[in-house]
Amino acid sequence: MSVNEDSTGVLLAARRRLISPSLTLSYRQPLHIVRGTMQYLFDQTGRRYLDGYNNVPHVGHCHPEVVSAATKQMALLNTNTRYLHETLEQYAESLTSTLPEPLRMCFFVNSGSEANELALRLARVHTQSTDLIVLNGAYHGNTTTLTHISPYKADGLESGRPSWVHIVALPDVYRGEHKSDDPRAGEKYAQPVGECIAQLESQRKGLCGYIAESCPSVGGQLLFPEGYLAAVYAKVRGAGGVCIADEVQTAYGRLGEYFYGFEQQRVVPDIVVLGKPIGNGYPIGAVVTTAEIARSFDNGQEFFSTFGGSTVSCTVGAAVLEIVNQDRLQTHAKKVGSHLLAGLRSLIDRYSLIGDVRGSGFFLGVELVRNRDTLEPAAQEATDVVNRMRDTGVLIGTDGPFHNVLKIRPPMPFNAEDADALVTCLDDALARSEIS
Amino acid sequence: MSVNEDSTGVLLAARRRLISPSLTLSYRQPLHIVRGTMQYLFDQTGRRYLDGYNNVPHVGHCHPEVVSAATKQMALLNTNTRYLHETLEQYAESLTSTLPEPLRMCFFVNSGSEANELALRLARVHTQSTDLIVLNGAYHGNTTTLTHISPYKADGLESGRPSWVHIVALPDVYRGEHKSDDPRAGEKYAQPVGECIAQLESQRKGLCGYIAESCPSVGGQLLFPEGYLAAVYAKVRGAGGVCIADEVQTAYGRLGEYFYGFEQQRVVPDIVVLGKPIGNGYPIGAVVTTAEIARSFDNGQEFFSTFGGSTVSCTVGAAVLEIVNQDRLQTHAKKVGSHLLAGLRSLIDRYSLIGDVRGSGFFLGVELVRNRDTLEPAAQEATDVVNRMRDTGVLIGTDGPFHNVLKIRPPMPFNAEDADALVTCLDDALARSEIS
Repeated sequence: MSVNEDSTGVLLAARRRLISPSLTLSYRQPLHIVRGTMQYLFDQTGRRYLDGYNNVPHVGHCHPEVVSAATKQMALLNTNTRYLHETLEQYAESLTSTLPEPLRMCFFVNSGSEANELALRLARVHTQSTDLIVLNGAYHGNTTTLTHISPYKADGLESGRPSWVHIVALPDVYRGEHKSDDPRAGEKYAQPVGECIAQLESQRKGLCGYIAESCPSVGGQLLFPEGYLAAVYAKVRGAGGVCIADEVQTAYGRLGEYFYGFEQQRVVPDIVVLGKPIGNGYPIGAVVTTAEIARSFDNGQEFFSTFGGSTVSCTVGAAVLEIVNQDRLQTHAKKVGSHLLAGLRSLIDRYSLIGDVRGSGFFLGVELVRNRDTLEPAAQEATDVVNRMRDTGVLIGTDGPFHNVLKIRPPMPFNAEDADALVTCLDDALARSEIS
Repeated sequence: MSVNEDSTGVLLAARRRLISPSLTLSYRQPLHIVRGTMQYLFDQTGRRYLDGYNNVPHVGHCHPEVVSAATKQMALLNTNTRYLHETLEQYAESLTSTLPEPLRMCFFVNSGSEANELALRLARVHTQSTDLIVLNGAYHGNTTTLTHISPYKADGLESGRPSWVHIVALPDVYRGEHKSDDPRAGEKYAQPVGECIAQLESQRKGLCGYIAESCPSVGGQLLFPEGYLAAVYAKVRGAGGVCIADEVQTAYGRLGEYFYGFEQQRVVPDIVVLGKPIGNGYPIGAVVTTAEIARSFDNGQEFFSTFGGSTVSCTVGAAVLEIVNQDRLQTHAKKVGSHLLAGLRSLIDRYSLIGDVRGSGFFLGVELVRNRDTLEPAAQEATDVVNRMRDTGVLIGTDGPFHNVLKIRPPMPFNAEDADALVTCLDDALARSEIS
């Protein structure tokens, strides 16, 4: 046994003793990562891995400008929103400048989960209703209420799915009822939302709203068909509901063509939920909504998040946004993402295992199937491919309801050479799948 | 209008435009704080304020060792618990070493709210029950589920109080039914818990558990009477429930005599919830529980917090704990806290407005009343006192169900001179109350 294997063994033993087993490790052979820089991670032996799926370090692992901004503010002042401080207003100003009117009122919290929690509270107070329409395969966070609206994880979990949650089909034009060749797929996938509303009306129940990730990520790296959200939002608003866009996985130019996922659908949500990438690893979540909804929530009850909107959170948040703009990362994701997508598509003809290649910018999915007609999910094969790629130095993950979708969502500095390296590595892993 | 008033005006205008009004500002004349160091804060004019109530910067505002540890790790690697990393195990090791057996399994999240959310999920899975006993006047966080169990804020709020929440009286030996001169007060306050359990049993309902801040803080800076939690825990466990101690306000030696609030009650909880002080302002929450409860939760469903347990969170968390130990801050809080308490008590005879002075270490409360017999709360007077003290350079807050309790909870480096300065400032503010 080498020294490295030994150190990994020691870490694993301590982990088993002190950390709940509900926290899982990636890969069959867990990685002991000790250093990160931009789109690269390094293990304890100094070996470099190309990071092809971590979207939290949006502007790059350990981006020096983020570290420097955080450090300066941490040394100067780290306090809360009950005092006046320019960092709060400045961050809110730059954040809202990326969003369309009337999304102008900000709340800051510490994670996407906290942001989705708050979004639901806002929607409920505003509509005075609780019934919510959610997508099958969705994941919105880890609190009790969010597990209820996250069919991806936990089917109801500890307390069962409450009656106020209404699940509609995931608009998946590869695997769903309406396929990509149907020009009316968007409209058709919106129909169940209309049916759900009609049912609520027949029961004389009000509608709180509709929540969806603007592009479902754990749902399988999906882009909605054209017209889907526009049709849904019209129905929801017609019934007095609020439209919530969960942009935790898609914000800040990841899609290349769009700064936010909802732009791809040409809609403006009533509430936008932000998380993961906006702090580049510093714990930040945000909710941006309309003045009208914020007013409804202002019912005399203070909303306070101890760390949310702190001087350090806001400084880090503003620094990340500035780097995204300054380094034109959206344009970069569009250019390199197209190149990567083309590379992935070039593999389709050579490997029958590849059922679909989809996505936009640095939000890509490769769905593996055992049979292109039956679409039988190739989950085991996807796991094999991801583990083989890890062994040869490229990190991606699996996702989707059947765990058969290769998830590719790299830090934004990922470049064309990295894209080629990822495609070559995937090619190699798939080739070995065909042999084995 | 001075330049400073002008800059405050500009900040206030931007805040109104961009930040929800549900986020409130402290003091009639809001403070524009620009710098912090240990137990002091400085405004935009360079004026120094003695911080007598912020318990988040536990080891001191901008403690250089915390900043340096965070900076180093941020520049090296900031990633999540799906990889092996020694920071996670090391932090879990030092955290659990402060807790009694069998509290050995750790979960890390980003705030006290997220930690309380997770504690409830653990308790529900473990007991397969949802009915929970909570204290009147409690505050456990800002998510939907936590507003339900937080009678202090929001009486039910947007969706009403659910039937699984059972509220029992706050054991307040000053204002409650059983006073401090009753040696059996603890036992008597525990009785309603027994009654609630009997009622659940008569309805053939299971008990999920009992949750309380080990010393209610927003409830009025209270210490439970002797024997209270021991009696409650016995009843709850007898009914198959789980005992949750919310230590968000009291952890890490603040009480002087005790490292955790539950020690003052000579009990060992089944789940301990940590927040605010443990990251010194960096967003960290933690849940520590037994192997048995962690096993119940390990039902094949991953629990993942994007930032919780990150390499940076754990590094910061471990650094804070090390400073607490190394600088013997618990002993310091005991010594200086006693001095401060004596100083506050010396005011009782001179001001009839003071109804009660209570607490331990740096967790102190001064309850103001208009009449020492009727205990009519002097809320307006408390607000006046706090604002006058702010004007003369000492920051404290008000709390309690009637907002008439002066809340004193300084950063731990607060020293004897600071204590004298606070007492003098309070003396002065009270003197002006009597005149006006």
